Formats: sequence, C-alpha cells, structure tokens
Amino acid sequence: MTEAAAPERVHIIGTGLIGTSLGLALTRAGESVTLEDLSTTNAALARDLGAGKTSVDVDPDLVVVATPPDVTAACVARALDRWPHAVVTDVASVKVAIIDALRLEGADLARFCGSHPMAGRERSGAVAGRHDLFHGRAWVLTPTVETSETAVALVRSVAATVGSAVVTLEPEEHDAAVASVSHVPQLVASLVAARLEHLADSSVALAGQGLRDVTRIAASDPHLWTQILSGNAHAVRDILAALATDLHAVIGALDALGSDQDALGARGTLARAIAAGNAGHARIPGKHGAAPTAYATVRVLIPDEPGQLGRLFADVGAIGTNIEEFHLDHGLGQAFGLAEIDVVPGAAAALAEGLEERGWRLHG
Amino acid sequence: MTEAAAPERVHIIGTGLIGTSLGLALTRAGESVTLEDLSTTNAALARDLGAGKTSVDVDPDLVVVATPPDVTAACVARALDRWPHAVVTDVASVKVAIIDALRLEGADLARFCGSHPMAGRERSGAVAGRHDLFHGRAWVLTPTVETSETAVALVRSVAATVGSAVVTLEPEEHDAAVASVSHVPQLVASLVAARLEHLADSSVALAGQGLRDVTRIAASDPHLWTQILSGNAHAVRDILAALATDLHAVIGALDALGSDQDALGARGTLARAIAAGNAGHARIPGKHGAAPTAYATVRVLIPDEPGQLGRLFADVGAIGTNIEEFHLDHGLGQAFGLAEIDVVPGAAAALAEGLEERGWRLHG
Repeated sequence: MTEAAAPERVHIIGTGLIGTSLGLALTRAGESVTLEDLSTTNAALARDLGAGKTSVDVDPDLVVVATPPDVTAACVARALDRWPHAVVTDVASVKVAIIDALRLEGADLARFCGSHPMAGRERSGAVAGRHDLFHGRAWVLTPTVETSETAVALVRSVAATVGSAVVTLEPEEHDAAVASVSHVPQLVASLVAARLEHLADSSVALAGQGLRDVTRIAASDPHLWTQILSGNAHAVRDILAALATDLHAVIGALDALGSDQDALGARGTLARAIAAGNAGHARIPGKHGAAPTAYATVRVLIPDEPGQLGRLFADVGAIGTNIEEFHLDHGLGQAFGLAEIDVVPGAAAALAEGLEERGWRLHG
Repeated sequence: MTEAAAPERVHIIGTGLIGTSLGLALTRAGESVTLEDLSTTNAALARDLGAGKTSVDVDPDLVVVATPPDVTAACVARALDRWPHAVVTDVASVKVAIIDALRLEGADLARFCGSHPMAGRERSGAVAGRHDLFHGRAWVLTPTVETSETAVALVRSVAATVGSAVVTLEPEEHDAAVASVSHVPQLVASLVAARLEHLADSSVALAGQGLRDVTRIAASDPHLWTQILSGNAHAVRDILAALATDLHAVIGALDALGSDQDALGARGTLARAIAAGNAGHARIPGKHGAAPTAYATVRVLIPDEPGQLGRLFADVGAIGTNIEEFHLDHGLGQAFGLAEIDVVPGAAAALAEGLEERGWRLHG
C-alpha cells in the first residue's frame, strides 16, 4: 500500500450531495471522473455543475457507490460484477450490514473497501454539492480481512485528495463508534426536544443556552435518520439499552427522594450519574484532535443593538489575539447577550485589557 | 402593585455567588444593602468587595435569603419571624418544596414571595460575584394565593433594578418548567456523555459538533446538581418517565429491525421520534424571545493557522453586517474549521460577497 497508488479513472454511481461533491472535488484535483445515476436528469445536472462526464460505458480503476443507504449493498455487488478489475467503495454511514449482504452474495470482497466520509449538509441533491465538502472531515475506511492492500490504497488516495483525514477502523468498530458519537446523541436530543412540544409558552420561554445546545440537532430530517438508525439497529440499540438502565436508576433515585428526602443512597445515584457524565465529557477531543485544551475565557456583554457584534468582531480583530473558540449566549431576549471568547491562557489578559480600553463591559 | 414600591433597605442572608452579586448590583444602583452570613469571614469578604455593609442588627423592608438550597426554607421561616414587617424572598432554583415547608410551619406567607434569578456561573463564592450577573437574565417570581401585592412589588422592583426580565409563574409551573428546560436536559446530557467514558480513543476521535453540543453541560458540578435534582424530584421524575417510555419505544423498534429489517411499524416509530423532536425544537424561542427567526447562514472556511479567526472578525466588522448568531465548527483537528454566521436573510448576499472579495472561501 503506497500513497502513489492513486486511481486514474473514478466512476461515481449516484449523483446526490456526496457523489456530486466528490466529483467536483476530484475534477478540481485533475482526476478523470465519470458519473452515473438511475435518474439521467440527476446525472446531467451533476455533469453541468462540473462534477465529471456522464457515461455508463467506462473502465474505471475505482467505483464509488454513493446511492441512498438502502440500495448501497446491491449497487456495490453489481459494480464488483460489472468491472472485474476495479476496486469498489461506498460512502454509507453504516458499514456492517453492507458487508454482511455482500458476503451472503459471495461478492469479491478483495476488491471492496467500505468507507464513510463524515461530511454532510442539511440540504441534499446535486445542487447542494460542494467541492470542499470533505475538507478537514474524517473519512473512515473499513477494510475487512479479505480487502486487498491495493483496494485500501486507492480509497485512501481519493479521501486524501479531497482533503479528508483518513481513519481506519474495523466495520463493527465503526458502527459502534458512530452509534455512540452520532446516532445515540441524535436520538436523545430528539427525545429531550420532544418533551417541549406541548409545554406552555411561559415555560418554554425559560429556555437557556444549555437546552439550546442539547437540542440543536433535534432539527434533523426524520426520513434520513430513520434510514441511518435502521441500518445500525444493533449498535444503537445496545447503547440505548445501557443508557436506559442508567436512566431507570436515576428515576428510581428520584422516586425514593420524592417520598423520603433522606432515602438511603438516592443522592449517591444522582451524583454518580452526573460525575460519570463529567468523565465521559472529558474524553471528547478538543479542536486540535487531542485531549481538550484548557483555554481561558474572556466574557463580553453585547448590547442587543444593531451592529454591536460586528463592532466586537472588528475590535477583537484589531487587538489581534488568536481566538480558539467563540460562543454566543443569549439571555431571555433582553438587553444583553454574552459572548465567550476562548484563547490560550497567556493571551487572555491582553485581550481583556484591549476590549475594556475599547469600551466593552467584561463579565466574569 | 406598582413599580414605585421599591425597597429602601435590603438585607441579604448568604454571601455566596448570588447574594454577593445581588449586593454588588443593588449597591451600585444606590440601594442600602446589609449582609449576613453564617461565616463572618464570607460576609466580611463580600463587604470588602463592595456588596454592602455587614450587620445583623437591621430593620429591612426586604430580606433576600441566598443560602444553599437545602437550608433555604428554614432561613426564610426564621427571617419572617425575626422581621415581622419585612417582605422575604429566596433565590433557590426549586420552589414548591420551600413553600410546602413554610406552610407546614405556619409561616406568614403573605410576606413571602419566592423567586428564582436564572443566572449562575461555573464558579461559586463571594469572590466570583459580579454586579452584572443578572443583566438580561430571567428572574422568575412565584407568588402564592397568600402572597400580598406589596411583597410581589418589592421583589419585582429588586429584580428589575439589577437588569433582569421579570417573569411570574405558579410555583408548580416554575418547577415543571425548569425540570423540562434545565434539569432533564442536564441529566440526559450527562447520561449520553457517560456512554463515552469507556469508549476506545479511535471511536471518541470521530466526535463531531453534534456530540459536543449535546454534551457540553455534562461538565457541570455533581454536588450542586444533586441538590437541585433532589429538590425537584417529582417534576424531574415525571418528565424522565415520559422520556423513558419514548426511549423504550425506540429500543423496541430497533430490536424489531435487528431481527427483521421489514418489521412492521418499526421505521414509523423511529420517524415519529425524530419528528416529535423537530416539533419540540421549533418551540424554543430565538434570540429575541419570540418564535425562532429564520436566519440566513453564511459559512466560511477558516484555515487552522494563528490569527485566522481574528482576521475573519476584522473583515466581518469592516463589512458591517449585523450578526445574529455565530457558531464555530471544528473538523477532526484538520486543516480547516467552519464558521457559521447567521444574519437576517436580506443581509446574507452582501456579507458573502464582502467576504469573498476579502479572500475567504465560502462553504455552501
């Protein structure tokens, strides 16, 4: 397996958001790309956007199956048959079910290397395609024991060409990982948000930044997520079951406290649940992919008047501090917002001083 | 009840974060404030910071009990006895349990108006006190049928003086509301984060912005949250039980799909869970306290090099667009970050054009 093993001719089947974006990115990088879609209108649209040439009479080195997840396995099997010398990959967000289906069909798994570019948008279709969709995103490869080194090298090369960070995982490991870091958080955010549906306006008006953060992804598309969750049913189910066990322990503790505020062990259960959350939260990598960095935070009150946030941006830019994170917190639609600017600890004092000199009111 | 009914002499019992911040804010507003704390060192510290005079020999119009929640009811009862003409309020984040305890003691509820300033910090104690802690935050008043109009007016006046938005709710309504918008989201964020504790590094490395948002508040203090959850056990329990019912429906659907991908009704259950989340999420008020505003988003790729975010701020400031929201999204510690700038729809084109002119790469 060498980085030099780049494909010369890439054929993309399915010209939705991912297929079209990949075509745009590879074409821009000088690769020869052909496109195919069940809908010839879709394929022609992707072509007109610059994603490649439309053709079904091709002899590719690499075939990328970028169809909806429910037909991915069948399309991969057909591609392996149709081009007996080509390597085939797919881009679905769930991996084990596809490999199981291919194995059942007796497909040539040496030439198949499943993959998952962790990039998406809230819009779909060729028109939403972007050549930079994969920049700085993880692209997970999930080779099996059967997968040849050539197959892995070709897919790795494509992912690197479009600017992704290549990560290799076992298929089972991938599905369990995305269940933990993506599918379960999505479901739970939806379940928390669902509890707000019939809440009184006066109650929902008390929503703060915590609730906003927890439920932001609850705005996601039910149709897409039903496909994703169905395809990863086992892994998602196992984590949800463990979460349900923890949840029932908490409910039990609250029940006990509801009838007896001195209930033995109940407060311990609550404290352990929150403490376990601390420990898990600390595992999430920071901006630079390592352990979370301890930044210093400068908090600035933003009067809710036109142009204030723009003025803050101009002043922070003029001060010239390197900003690691920026977070905007709203109160109850009142006179002030709160901007949190994270910088490396050594830079906080200069930023705070510079902002105060420019008339900003700091907060904490 | 009139806005003119401002207290002339405010006595604050408990000089932690909230008590000290209130003393600082009221002193700054020209009110006469006295302070008292079980720990005379704490009280002296708050005094030295400018939060008021330390004295126990006082004749206040209004007493604010700002002690830890587990002793609030007892302190309120004592204050009502000690000053038979004063109005008394508290600042605890749970209200029904306090009123129940006072009623049981036969306290003079006409002079008590419970309240909850929805402000806090991740640090505690007098030293963390800020005169602007309550600016733009909701301050909920929870009068009962017994509460006199004078009592309500005095507490309302104090909340308004320190810059809060006053909201009046029934005590039960308050506790149910904070259970929904604060306590349940906190617990669920902790439960999701807890699932990461023993995950492999390679899996946790796939964490994206969705997971970061869902689990941000999972970093909260177990000791404080154990007190809060214990004090609101009934309301939190009821919502968690409803959430558990939804969760089990989802687990059941995933179980069914795990053994039969065509399981009747299973996909419908998943889709309904995500769709209910959509509906609940749409209830959360936007920045201006009304229904969520549909902003247009301009997405900008940020090279992960020193000074780039500062340069963006300077350019956005120079373009002069009024910014409604700003969100920074990180990939996997790779070459780019993604800034999302929300503006009113009419302003998006000018901002995008201005940024492209200044050499920024837009994204979608």
